[in-house]
Amino acid sequence: MPIEPKILKGFRDSLPAQEIVKKRIISRLEHVFSTFGFVPIDTPALEYTEVLLGKGGGETDKQIFRFTDNGGRDVAMRFDLTVPFARFLAAHAHEIALPFKRFHIDKVWRGENPQKGRFREFTQCDFDIVGVDNAWADFEILSIMNESFTAMGIDKVTFHVAHRGLFNAFLAHLGIQDHSVDVLRTVDKLRKIGSEATREELEVLTGSSEKANAVLSYISPAAGTDFLERLENLSSLAGGEQEHSGRLREIYHLLSDAGIASKFELDPSITRGLDYYTGIVYETFLDDLQTIGSVCSGGRYNDLASMYSPERIPGVGSSIGLDRLMSGLAELDSPLMTDTASAHVLVMVVDEKYRTRCIALSRLLRSSGLAVDVYVASKKAGQQYKYAESGHIPYAVIAEDGEKWTVKNLATRETVDGLTDTQVCEHLTKENA
Amino acid sequence: MPIEPKILKGFRDSLPAQEIVKKRIISRLEHVFSTFGFVPIDTPALEYTEVLLGKGGGETDKQIFRFTDNGGRDVAMRFDLTVPFARFLAAHAHEIALPFKRFHIDKVWRGENPQKGRFREFTQCDFDIVGVDNAWADFEILSIMNESFTAMGIDKVTFHVAHRGLFNAFLAHLGIQDHSVDVLRTVDKLRKIGSEATREELEVLTGSSEKANAVLSYISPAAGTDFLERLENLSSLAGGEQEHSGRLREIYHLLSDAGIASKFELDPSITRGLDYYTGIVYETFLDDLQTIGSVCSGGRYNDLASMYSPERIPGVGSSIGLDRLMSGLAELDSPLMTDTASAHVLVMVVDEKYRTRCIALSRLLRSSGLAVDVYVASKKAGQQYKYAESGHIPYAVIAEDGEKWTVKNLATRETVDGLTDTQVCEHLTKENA
Repeated sequence: MPIEPKILKGFRDSLPAQEIVKKRIISRLEHVFSTFGFVPIDTPALEYTEVLLGKGGGETDKQIFRFTDNGGRDVAMRFDLTVPFARFLAAHAHEIALPFKRFHIDKVWRGENPQKGRFREFTQCDFDIVGVDNAWADFEILSIMNESFTAMGIDKVTFHVAHRGLFNAFLAHLGIQDHSVDVLRTVDKLRKIGSEATREELEVLTGSSEKANAVLSYISPAAGTDFLERLENLSSLAGGEQEHSGRLREIYHLLSDAGIASKFELDPSITRGLDYYTGIVYETFLDDLQTIGSVCSGGRYNDLASMYSPERIPGVGSSIGLDRLMSGLAELDSPLMTDTASAHVLVMVVDEKYRTRCIALSRLLRSSGLAVDVYVASKKAGQQYKYAESGHIPYAVIAEDGEKWTVKNLATRETVDGLTDTQVCEHLTKENA
Repeated sequence: MPIEPKILKGFRDSLPAQEIVKKRIISRLEHVFSTFGFVPIDTPALEYTEVLLGKGGGETDKQIFRFTDNGGRDVAMRFDLTVPFARFLAAHAHEIALPFKRFHIDKVWRGENPQKGRFREFTQCDFDIVGVDNAWADFEILSIMNESFTAMGIDKVTFHVAHRGLFNAFLAHLGIQDHSVDVLRTVDKLRKIGSEATREELEVLTGSSEKANAVLSYISPAAGTDFLERLENLSSLAGGEQEHSGRLREIYHLLSDAGIASKFELDPSITRGLDYYTGIVYETFLDDLQTIGSVCSGGRYNDLASMYSPERIPGVGSSIGLDRLMSGLAELDSPLMTDTASAHVLVMVVDEKYRTRCIALSRLLRSSGLAVDVYVASKKAGQQYKYAESGHIPYAVIAEDGEKWTVKNLATRETVDGLTDTQVCEHLTKENA
């Protein structure tokens, strides 16, 4: 009796058409990170629960995959790449030089209820600079975000930027700093629940409709205003120019000098619900598909590593949610998602007697940089064409008598025949160029 | 009170110098697989325990990370990539075209006791062809093994090949086919326990010193004999030429036609302890470091998918144990392990007033394909040189007054000064070429 090949709720297989695209995206991102001198690290999928839950508790507790291992240890699967990075920094403080610029692309696991675009296993792509607290590092992370989306061929994207410190200064100025965590969580829901529901929640929290309105007005900038106008307004709402608004202004000028400021919008409604951010925070929205939420988020956190270490290591970073981004790109019919050919060419085997020739030709074509699939069995031509089609392979090569070959374009059905090995190679490398 | 940043026994962090090499190796392997038309897939890290343990039980049971999730499901972390692949094939039978050629590189977890080169979390790199049972597919997997080691710059490697079916025919001819599983497991230990201990175990198993000697003689080919001579000898020990020896001979001729036969040794002591192999089996040893064991193993399995499906899907595949291979390469001081520079060049920032120029130069250098790390803070030059050294960065660029730059080779300490932006770019791209 066969076992049912079922998969756990919230988990997925990745079929080749999906996985080819995912690897392509990851490869482009890794290239961008490398050109900025960022280096890869890795941490275990499984850690001591105490190590992972030291901070962050709350909702995460229930959502974690946690168990007792065969050695009686209380362990858990990592639910993000940030907490393990903080642990990593404390564990390897003497092996790494600061500023440390790292990226980490791998899976994380959460037991939350699966919904559209959300899974219990998903891939995060984090990049961070730790060891410095200045506008330059903040700017470099923002630059990499911009380069990353450019490298993925996504130009219709906007980075929404705010400053947690400035917001806290505003709350203090308003006299409601004691409610700051709850206010932040409420404001974080604005996009989901709308401004009226947000205002009501804020009124309950602050016990004052005046203060609720003030918060709502802070997080709702006037349409048509630009980055610097908004910054000036936020500054004055927070009691005047100070450190945090100065930092944001400096970052803006660096973005402006680099010619990329137009991609960045000052959006004070961005707070990032999590409580470890202390400076700039940001979220990223696809212009044509804002409803799926942020596809790249992060900010400055100046106290994270302190969970594990008496030292204070400031940091700034960002994380691309690859699965959500890919769902979005699929919905937008992005060209990035469409090229999923398993090879450039299928060498068809219509008769076993051609086998040695087919192998020799494949080797020649591969040495010219082509991806060559050989059918490894002699089946009817129809079946082999169907196979090529299922793999989106654009060309087929068929052996003829007299050491010659026919090349067929499988989209147009055009054929060129009587080609020698070398001619096949020339023809296909030209077509593929 | 900070939490101790400890890691679970048998688990490791991967620091940049290690992870850069790992990514380089994986990238080269993925390139090889792609040039053969192999496509990537992925499966969940977590599966129903029943799905993973359907077959293979025994020792694996105790070594698995198994627990009850928050939904009360009996789940386990995958302990290899083969069982999930069999489940994948049954689950997606109607979405994939046969022959299906896939690769899968990712982590697996086993609770076994950690020892040198063995960890509880490690990366496997599997490639398989399913849907055909012929010499051509067997040959293609062997070719890819050869190409993979070539791509990794490892030429001192030997592939040890045997045939499980031929061995079973030999056991039947000897009248001890009922003990085949135990005999296979014993023979599999030959390399570890030596021939005398193997002989003794075999004698206990078969109850006959004559039969034990016959088995020992089968698995110990005469030194100096070549592939075809050994094959003939094994054939006759197994009762004469038959299907399995014919298959091995055909594979040998394909290897020979492809000019790579000298890398493959017929070694009848290779059995692969696991019981799902039915045809050719192989292990791979680094010539200069045989003691670490096989770094790439596999074989033909014609009944694997039947765990989940009434259909019989034949397959052949191989798996590279990346962690063990990397331990071995490190021990051999392989050049593959040494180039771990985090960037081509460090743009040093000796004065904040040069910041905008440094950013502009970095952008220019990156657009020429260079990996450029900017120090993102103005610290003493000595500290910045130390930072470059720790990242094995070969060049530094330092701003001079008058819009000029100095380039310094950090190994030779040679400097070139008075360069314009464009000249820096030309100089570094030439040095890097």
